[in-house]
Amino acid sequence: MSELHPRVREILEGDTLAMLTTLGPDGSPHTSGIWVDVDGDEIVSGHLGFYRKLRHVERDPRVSYSFVPGSLTSQGLHEYLVIYGSARVTEGGAPELLQKLAHVYMGPDVVFPGPDAPPGWVLRTRIERVAGHGPWAGR
Amino acid sequence: MSELHPRVREILEGDTLAMLTTLGPDGSPHTSGIWVDVDGDEIVSGHLGFYRKLRHVERDPRVSYSFVPGSLTSQGLHEYLVIYGSARVTEGGAPELLQKLAHVYMGPDVVFPGPDAPPGWVLRTRIERVAGHGPWAGR
Repeated sequence: MSELHPRVREILEGDTLAMLTTLGPDGSPHTSGIWVDVDGDEIVSGHLGFYRKLRHVERDPRVSYSFVPGSLTSQGLHEYLVIYGSARVTEGGAPELLQKLAHVYMGPDVVFPGPDAPPGWVLRTRIERVAGHGPWAGR
Repeated sequence: MSELHPRVREILEGDTLAMLTTLGPDGSPHTSGIWVDVDGDEIVSGHLGFYRKLRHVERDPRVSYSFVPGSLTSQGLHEYLVIYGSARVTEGGAPELLQKLAHVYMGPDVVFPGPDAPPGWVLRTRIERVAGHGPWAGR
């Protein structure tokens, strides 16, 4: 993946909820909202439990993320960002990442998940393609 | 599908952009933003061209929709709605539906797509399951 467009990076680092779609055991789409950060050319998220989305990714790494920041493009249409990538699960590191993201998504004073949280898992997605409607696509 | 929760119906009828995920020929997720309306227990959208998402649905009808209205739940988390369903493509009717939706998503004075638009296609999705984070899930 070449360097991310500044607006793409801004959305990934901001407080727009990410909607992650993974593929279930029967190949059907499974979609849920998560907090994300960007680390180099990877999207990262923290998970305290080994939830369904992580099980899905271990079986099939193909995922999509969507973001609708609430802004309009110059044509008066809703800006939206779609990222396609290949995801993998790594062990540990969830509480630190979630605490950082709680400050972004909830507020600077929020303490989450707290000192007794289990190490959990971090989902790392290598960004393979950027799509959607916004300045990164010339709109 | 039993009757929709009032808040689910409100989101579906409102101006929150819908992110639709279909399955590509190789089973990978394909996600794009569309305008939608609700008709009984179906989500409907208008399409002037026979775009990729319509081709996907003809091959595999399994889809998911997500909506992030920008409101917070009582826990201070982002509300989001996910709908799973089975989609089918019907011929014609796109311009009338798109004009109705242009008023919802762009403004009451917007004329789109105009009188010369082709009949296009309407995508109809039978709602099979409602998920996400909001009052319809007891949160």
